[in-house]
Amino acid sequence: MKRDKIILGIDPGTNIMGYGVIEVTGNILKLISAGVISLEKYDNHPLKLKHIFEKTSGLISQYLPDELAIEAPFFGKNVQSMLKLGRAQGVALAAALQKDVPVFEYSPKKIKQSVTGNGSASKEQVAAMLQTLLQFETTPKYLDATDGLAAAVCHHFQNNGIVKAARATNWQTFIKQNPERLA
Amino acid sequence: MKRDKIILGIDPGTNIMGYGVIEVTGNILKLISAGVISLEKYDNHPLKLKHIFEKTSGLISQYLPDELAIEAPFFGKNVQSMLKLGRAQGVALAAALQKDVPVFEYSPKKIKQSVTGNGSASKEQVAAMLQTLLQFETTPKYLDATDGLAAAVCHHFQNNGIVKAARATNWQTFIKQNPERLA
Repeated sequence: MKRDKIILGIDPGTNIMGYGVIEVTGNILKLISAGVISLEKYDNHPLKLKHIFEKTSGLISQYLPDELAIEAPFFGKNVQSMLKLGRAQGVALAAALQKDVPVFEYSPKKIKQSVTGNGSASKEQVAAMLQTLLQFETTPKYLDATDGLAAAVCHHFQNNGIVKAARATNWQTFIKQNPERLA
Repeated sequence: MKRDKIILGIDPGTNIMGYGVIEVTGNILKLISAGVISLEKYDNHPLKLKHIFEKTSGLISQYLPDELAIEAPFFGKNVQSMLKLGRAQGVALAAALQKDVPVFEYSPKKIKQSVTGNGSASKEQVAAMLQTLLQFETTPKYLDATDGLAAAVCHHFQNNGIVKAARATNWQTFIKQNPERLA
């Protein structure tokens, strides 16, 4: 069967960037790739941003995703952390937007809810559900990549599965149709 | 006399992006270009980010700046505003980093201090000093572009003029040498 879509999920932090690539064919999800990029070795903020940009560009060139899903925290950080996190997200988004890959964002709660049915699920619970859904062996590498992978799977469920949502044609329409995704 | 350096200053907000380009030859500053990009017409956050990225890339291709200076607010915003602002900055920084243009950031207070001698100067005072320094006629367009232009002029003064600062070779060195620029 011809694959419907490739989804790239990323969780761009300032110390670790997690990513996951899934292939969707009907209701079948297949893990294509998942991993983490450690940014702690770069002691220089612009250099971290550059690596996030280049890595995201590289993932897009390699896997040609149809859509990009990103984890977007809105709470629980101080303003300075949010500025840094926003920049990390901004460079990742720039890599996608430059290549005309539509981007979608989901709160951590929405991602946990979508993947496990419980918005307060632990990271281990999310990882276990991803393992079942995608039928991969648990490895430390995949556990660390959970957040990016979960964003990709959440995006699939939001658009094709559990929650019926019209495909958003733009961000405003998307928000009107899915106000709960921002909270 | 051969020009020493071209500096691009930008102030990437989520509604308006201001920019200024100056040419430095010894102690002579020359205004090359300044302007604003209105982003209010884009009702869609990713589309705003895309325009900031493309506009910044376009400015870099057009003026070939040696360095980019950015205004980086650290206080007085709520976390959600900071995330959005961080993303806007992130895409602008990505455009510079992609083209290997070194980036430098300055707080609003540092910019005002550097340009006018008073860290609490009004926007009008900053604009008036820029007008004197760069010998341009006041126009509404230039007034709106003040923040980007002021960042560029601040960067020049920090590195070549009023404050003696060694040229930073990386961000860590830069911060160690200039801790006051982050506060």
